[in-house]
Amino acid sequence: MTPWQRFDLRMREIVDLDQVLSLLSWDEETYAPDRARLVRGRQTGTLEAIRHQKLSAPELGAALVEAARDPTLGPAEKVMLARVSRRRALATAVPERLVKAFAEARSAALLAWQGARKDDDFPAFAPHLSTLIELARERAAALIAGGAAPAGPAYDALLDEYEPDMNIAKLGPVFTELRQGLVDLLGRLGEKGVKTRAGRFQQAFPIDAQLAMTVDVLAPLGFDLSRGRLDRSAHPFSASCGEHDVRLTTRFALEDPLNALYSTIHEAGHGMYEQGWAEAHYGTILASAPSYGLHESQSRLWENQVTRSQAFWTFFLPKMTARFPAQLGGMSVDEAWRAVNQVEPGFIRTEADEVTYNLHILLRFEVEAALIDGSLAVRDVPGVWREKMRHYLGITPPTDREGCLQDIHWASGYIGYFPSYSVGNIYSAQLYDAFLKAHPTAPESFAAGEFGVLLSWLRQNVHHRGYLESADETVKRASGSGLSVAPLLKYLRGKYGEVYRLA
Amino acid sequence: MTPWQRFDLRMREIVDLDQVLSLLSWDEETYAPDRARLVRGRQTGTLEAIRHQKLSAPELGAALVEAARDPTLGPAEKVMLARVSRRRALATAVPERLVKAFAEARSAALLAWQGARKDDDFPAFAPHLSTLIELARERAAALIAGGAAPAGPAYDALLDEYEPDMNIAKLGPVFTELRQGLVDLLGRLGEKGVKTRAGRFQQAFPIDAQLAMTVDVLAPLGFDLSRGRLDRSAHPFSASCGEHDVRLTTRFALEDPLNALYSTIHEAGHGMYEQGWAEAHYGTILASAPSYGLHESQSRLWENQVTRSQAFWTFFLPKMTARFPAQLGGMSVDEAWRAVNQVEPGFIRTEADEVTYNLHILLRFEVEAALIDGSLAVRDVPGVWREKMRHYLGITPPTDREGCLQDIHWASGYIGYFPSYSVGNIYSAQLYDAFLKAHPTAPESFAAGEFGVLLSWLRQNVHHRGYLESADETVKRASGSGLSVAPLLKYLRGKYGEVYRLA
Repeated sequence: MTPWQRFDLRMREIVDLDQVLSLLSWDEETYAPDRARLVRGRQTGTLEAIRHQKLSAPELGAALVEAARDPTLGPAEKVMLARVSRRRALATAVPERLVKAFAEARSAALLAWQGARKDDDFPAFAPHLSTLIELARERAAALIAGGAAPAGPAYDALLDEYEPDMNIAKLGPVFTELRQGLVDLLGRLGEKGVKTRAGRFQQAFPIDAQLAMTVDVLAPLGFDLSRGRLDRSAHPFSASCGEHDVRLTTRFALEDPLNALYSTIHEAGHGMYEQGWAEAHYGTILASAPSYGLHESQSRLWENQVTRSQAFWTFFLPKMTARFPAQLGGMSVDEAWRAVNQVEPGFIRTEADEVTYNLHILLRFEVEAALIDGSLAVRDVPGVWREKMRHYLGITPPTDREGCLQDIHWASGYIGYFPSYSVGNIYSAQLYDAFLKAHPTAPESFAAGEFGVLLSWLRQNVHHRGYLESADETVKRASGSGLSVAPLLKYLRGKYGEVYRLA
Repeated sequence: MTPWQRFDLRMREIVDLDQVLSLLSWDEETYAPDRARLVRGRQTGTLEAIRHQKLSAPELGAALVEAARDPTLGPAEKVMLARVSRRRALATAVPERLVKAFAEARSAALLAWQGARKDDDFPAFAPHLSTLIELARERAAALIAGGAAPAGPAYDALLDEYEPDMNIAKLGPVFTELRQGLVDLLGRLGEKGVKTRAGRFQQAFPIDAQLAMTVDVLAPLGFDLSRGRLDRSAHPFSASCGEHDVRLTTRFALEDPLNALYSTIHEAGHGMYEQGWAEAHYGTILASAPSYGLHESQSRLWENQVTRSQAFWTFFLPKMTARFPAQLGGMSVDEAWRAVNQVEPGFIRTEADEVTYNLHILLRFEVEAALIDGSLAVRDVPGVWREKMRHYLGITPPTDREGCLQDIHWASGYIGYFPSYSVGNIYSAQLYDAFLKAHPTAPESFAAGEFGVLLSWLRQNVHHRGYLESADETVKRASGSGLSVAPLLKYLRGKYGEVYRLA
C-alpha cells in the first residue's frame, strides 16, 4: 500500500462508522422496541469509542504525515488530509477529564432543566448553566491549544465546531444588520395588523391521507426514494446512513397538515443535499457539509423560498385538494399562499414564522456570546431575555418557561450552535437569489410541478462541492458574495409586502 | 483495571459489534431503500474487519492468558474465557489466503448455482461444488491445526462450527435410527393414503388481518414486544440486536395463512430464546446459544410440539375465526388440527411436514459427509440424491432443480450445517417430553391460551444456561439424556397415529 492508500483506508473506515452510528440513531427514534434503548446506548458507546480510538490512533497521525509528503496529490486529496486532520484534532484536543466533566454536567443539567422548565424555576437551572458556561470556556481553550480551533475569543472556538472559518467579528455586524432590518419590517407589518390564519388548514385532516400527501411532495421536489426513506418520529430529523441511504422523518398533527408538510420538506432539503455528493466524494470526508449553516440553508431554501411561494401552491394545492376534497375544495391558490405566510410574533422559537424566526436566534446568540465573554451573568439571563423579546418582537414572555427555559440546546451543552440557524437562513436567500438570476423563469416550472432546474443548480453549485471548501467560499462562488443579509431582507420585504399589502 | 476487567471489556466490545451487525442485516432485509445495499455492504465489511481485528489482536490473546491466571475466577468466568478463546481460534485459524479463496469460490458458485438451477443443469454447477468441497477440506485442516476444532475427520471439524462437541461418530447412529423410524412410520401412513389438505385454509385471507393474527399469537406465547418487533421480509428470520432488542420477520401469502402463522411462531421460538438469557449473561459471550441445533430446537418446539397440538387450536381457532369469520366460521378444532398435521412426501425440503422433513436433512447429511470423506464423487450426486429420495420418501424428483439443486447451502459454502436442523428437531422432542413429565397438565393451560408454564420451564432449563455448557449437556441436564431420537419418534408416532387413525 502507498502512504495515500493507508490514509484513505483509515479515512473511509471513520466515514463508515459515522454512517453506521447514524443508522443506529435513526433506528432508535423510529422502529426500536421501547426497551431497546438500554442496549442501543451501550452499542453506540462502543462504536463511538472505536471511532475515537481510530481518530486518535498514532497510526492515523503517521498516515497523515506520510500521505502529505506525496508530491502527486491533487487539490481534493490535500483537502481530505486537512479535513481529517481537523477531525483528529477535534477528537484529541479536549482532555479526557474535561470530556467526562462535560458529559456529567450535561446529564445533570438536562435533568435540572426538565424540572426547572416544568416548574418555571430558572434559579434551579442557573447553577447548571453556570457550570456549563465555565466548562465551555475550558473546552474552547483546549480546542485552541490542541489546534482544533483558531486562536481568538472563546466563543469563536465554540462557533468554529459548527461554522468552521466563521467568527464573531464577521458574524456580529451581519447579525446586527439583519436584526435592524427585521425589527423594521416587523414594525411595518404590525401596523397593518392583518391576521388571517387560515381556518381551512385548521380542521381534521386524516393522518393516513397526510402521510400520502407527504410522499406526494418528495418525488417532485427531487428526493430519491430509491436512495432514502420517510418515516415517523416524535421530532422530525434527517439521517445520512450512506450516500444511497438518506432517511427522513416527519410527524403528524390531525388538525395541522402544514406541520407534516413543511417538516417533511425541511428534512427533504437536508436529505437532497446528502443525496447530492459528487460520486468522486462517496465514502470520503468530502461527502459532508462544510458547516451546519450551509446544511440548514438547503432545508430552509426548499421549505421557505420554494414551497411558501405562489408557484409551489399553484402546483400543489390541486394535489392536496385531491387528497382532502372535503377540507380544501374550492380554496384558491392565493388563499393557501397567504395562509402559509402569516407573521405573528410569539414566544416559542420552533413555532416562529420566517420574519420572526431569526430574531429568536439573534437574541439567543447575543445572550450566549455575552455569557461566554463574561459580560452577562447567568442570573441576569431571564431579565435580558424579556428585555430583548420586548425590543425585537414587541412581546414579553409571562414566564421563563416560555422564555429562556424553552430550548434544550444550552442544557445539552450546545453553546455556539444557534447562529447556524440564521446563517442557514441568510445563505438560503443568497443562493436562491443567485439561482433566480440564472433562471428567472424557474417559478413557472415550479407551478407545473417541475423543480429539476433548481435541484440541478444546487447539485452543481453546492452539493457537488461537498467539503472541498468552507461554507462561505461555496456561497461566494455560487452567489458572488460571502455571508450577506441583503438578499434575505429583500426576499422578506418583497413577499410580506405583498402578503400584507404594504405600500 | 484488573486482568479480568481488561478481558471483560474486550469481550463486551465484540458482543456489541455482533449485535450491531445483526441490526444492519435486519435493516437490509426490512426497511433499507433499494439502493442502500451498495453502502450497507461496505459498512458491514468495515465492521466485520474491525471485529476480526479485535478478535485476532495480540492484546486479546494477552488478556486471555492474564485473566486465566486470576485464582478468584468462578466457573462462569472460566467458561467465558474458553468461549472467547474458541472464537479467537475460529477467527485466526483459517489463513487469509484461504478465507479469500473461499469467498471468491462462494461468489462464483452462487452465480453458477442460480443459473444451473434455472436451467436444470447440474454439470454447470458441479465444478464449483468440487472446488468448495476441496476448500472445505482445507478449511477443516486449518481449523484443526489452529486449535479451533478437535482433531479427527474433516467433516467433524466443519460440523463443530455449528454443533460444538458433536461429531459424526455420535451423530451417525442416532441419524440412522431416526431414518429407520421415519421411513417405517411414513410407510404405515402411506398405506392409509389419507389426504385431507383442508380447503378452508386455502382461500383468500386478507393480508392486513393476517398481520393482526400473527401479532395475536406472539404475546400469549410469551414473545415480549417491548423488547422486540415483528416485520415483513422476503424470507423470515430472527435477528438478535441485543437482549432487549430481538427482531422477527415473517411473510404473507394471500391464500395460505398458515405460512405466516407458522413462520411467525418459528421465529418467535428463536426470539424467545434470545429474550431469555440470564441477566448475569447480558452483553457477554454467554448470552448466546451453544449450538445451532439447540437454537433450532426452540423454534421447532413452539412451531411443532406446541402449536400443532389440539390444545393450541382449542385456544387459537376462536381467535383466528374472529379475524376471519367468513373463511373459518363453523370450523371445528379437530378439523383445524388435522389440517395442520398433514403428511405428504414432496421434493422440496422447505415445504416438508414434520415426518418427512428430517428425511430431507438426513439425505443431505449423508451426501455432504460422503463428499467430504471422498467416498462420493460430485458427478454422482444427482443419482445418489434420486436413489435416496426413492428409498426414504418413495418419490423420485423429475429434475435436479427439484433435487440436488434446490438448496442454497452448499453454493453458499455451508457444509456441515444441515445436521443442525435435525439435531434441533430431536432436541425439541426431548425437551418437550421432559417438560410434559414435569407438567403433565400443561396442555390444559395451552387450551386456555396460557403458555407461561412452558416458557418458564424453558427459561430455567435452557435459556438461562446460555453458553455455559454444550448443547448436549444442557439437553441432558434438562431431559436426562443427550441426543436421543426416542422422544421424537414417540411423539410423531403418537400424533400421526391419531391423525391417520393407525391401528
